[in-house]
Amino acid sequence: MRLAIKSAGADGFLISDIKNIRYLSGFTGSSGYLLVTEKKSWFLTDSRYATQAKEEVRGCRVKIYKKALETIAAVAASMKVRTLGFEGGDLSYDNFLKVKKALPKTRLKPLSGAVAALRTIKEPVEISLIRDSVKVLDKGYLTAQKTLAAGVREKDAALLIERSFRESGGDSTAFDTIIASGFRGALPHGKASDKRIRKGELVVVDMGVVLNGYNSDETRTYCMGRASAEQMKVYSTVLAAQELAIGKIRPGVKAAEVDRAARGHIEKAGYGKYFGHGLGHGVGLEVHEGPSLGPNSTDVLEEGMVVTVEPGIYIPGWGGVRIEDMVRVVKGGAEVLTKTPKDFVCL
Amino acid sequence: MRLAIKSAGADGFLISDIKNIRYLSGFTGSSGYLLVTEKKSWFLTDSRYATQAKEEVRGCRVKIYKKALETIAAVAASMKVRTLGFEGGDLSYDNFLKVKKALPKTRLKPLSGAVAALRTIKEPVEISLIRDSVKVLDKGYLTAQKTLAAGVREKDAALLIERSFRESGGDSTAFDTIIASGFRGALPHGKASDKRIRKGELVVVDMGVVLNGYNSDETRTYCMGRASAEQMKVYSTVLAAQELAIGKIRPGVKAAEVDRAARGHIEKAGYGKYFGHGLGHGVGLEVHEGPSLGPNSTDVLEEGMVVTVEPGIYIPGWGGVRIEDMVRVVKGGAEVLTKTPKDFVCL
Repeated sequence: MRLAIKSAGADGFLISDIKNIRYLSGFTGSSGYLLVTEKKSWFLTDSRYATQAKEEVRGCRVKIYKKALETIAAVAASMKVRTLGFEGGDLSYDNFLKVKKALPKTRLKPLSGAVAALRTIKEPVEISLIRDSVKVLDKGYLTAQKTLAAGVREKDAALLIERSFRESGGDSTAFDTIIASGFRGALPHGKASDKRIRKGELVVVDMGVVLNGYNSDETRTYCMGRASAEQMKVYSTVLAAQELAIGKIRPGVKAAEVDRAARGHIEKAGYGKYFGHGLGHGVGLEVHEGPSLGPNSTDVLEEGMVVTVEPGIYIPGWGGVRIEDMVRVVKGGAEVLTKTPKDFVCL
Repeated sequence: MRLAIKSAGADGFLISDIKNIRYLSGFTGSSGYLLVTEKKSWFLTDSRYATQAKEEVRGCRVKIYKKALETIAAVAASMKVRTLGFEGGDLSYDNFLKVKKALPKTRLKPLSGAVAALRTIKEPVEISLIRDSVKVLDKGYLTAQKTLAAGVREKDAALLIERSFRESGGDSTAFDTIIASGFRGALPHGKASDKRIRKGELVVVDMGVVLNGYNSDETRTYCMGRASAEQMKVYSTVLAAQELAIGKIRPGVKAAEVDRAARGHIEKAGYGKYFGHGLGHGVGLEVHEGPSLGPNSTDVLEEGMVVTVEPGIYIPGWGGVRIEDMVRVVKGGAEVLTKTPKDFVCL
């Protein structure tokens, strides 16, 4: 266990967030808890996962429970834990009370974000899993280029592209596929609908894949037929903003500065009020995780982080453009992981 | 709002479980809160969902927040809520603290399970949505019969069946499709793997579909080639247990008694120790919800409940059989919603 629980003022830590449990123990199932003390660690789950836990879990003992919180409390008591950290952002109030009742003499201390902070820095094995996930996703964009056309229903295009993910080995989509054509492109979360794509429209395609637990996330915007002057201007503004931001990325840079680089360019072009969301977010076991690349972020980029860079311009009634890559923070700069070209493709 | 909050000893109720919010307000997005008081109700969400909330939400005002819990607390304070109920099984400890800090004079009272209890009884419109979801699922079993064969990889079969769900209009699978052949059939949660199906094996196929938010869940077990005497015996034991249990279902019957009917039959046949899980569960907006049909359940069946009946026999190293239907509790008895035949099909 890489958790420094002592420096957090605890001598035990109960981890309930299932993604954090996967990160620390290797368990890929959907139910269980991790109890870490200075000396020993336990993974605790119910009988359904006994075999799987024995196969997957590393670095801790496996214990099967009938009553989760009560068993955890008994183990903590046997280890004489005096201050038990817990994930206050994950553990429900009712479960907090159960632990408290079972451990009347133990101090309970919310340690929110402790594991999330570790997870922002990807280890080499994680980078390799992310690359695999991105590879499947990039292939999906080849299918997208072949599939998108005037007359095609957004939902039908999504189905065909998602099928290609599965055929290239993806476990599932990371989120509802966004295919937002024409006026729908102005919705930042316009998941594929029954609307048919029409000639002359821009189509925002934002997709993600999960492979071996690791997410990928990418956006491209296509034009159906010949692009108008304004479509070209908006596209090139977003693209330049995105590349300016990527150019800023290196270890030690404030995330808010990276956001500023993109936002400043979009503002200068006169589209400032049409870019309402943050510039990006970390990606890993979750498709949205730390760090945050928004204007108010206090995060600082570090080597090994993997983040999205995804500025957009969304003009109500007119449509939208978003361009998103996944970027790894490397010594001295950035490595763009997503490989789909960013020329303005008119289909 | 059908919530009787006064009788629960509160004059306000904060609902944070997103499925409960959907149930009560109609909002299908993934982020928001519902605040119900005796006089007025609010649905509160962030700006991404402003348009969607206005289109979908019924019976309450829509308010957009920047800081969720703080805004909710301000609305509760403006309504002079003295005792605010909340979902203790859903609200995280950290969010509980945020509400508490923002409402220092208000008593906070965990009202866990209040909405879940309402949700166990399906209204006619919900029954109709569940029927639609089951229809897509039953079609998937036709595809399963055509797809399963010696030499086929479990994962490839799952992919083909899931494709048929999507083609018949399903939004997604309700859970990772279980295709567990041969020895893997002894794992109650043996999701489709890289294992190839072999001649002579039993194959447990447990699948579910989500359509318009409503889940369906069904299991059939097939034999590859001619069945052995023991395979036939185990199959007919499970089937008889399942039908005995379905025969017990009617309003007023204790859920534990229904479990007993199936379990007793399996025990009498000498397979008692190979049936380790509960008999079934409610299905609706979640694929697992109340009531519980386990041996220790204290639930009593009521008209309008929709539950699964899914006994199984799992013999380590040998394999397994499970047969699962969705059943609606109707006046005087049970209506089986899933229509795939239950003869022992040898493919």
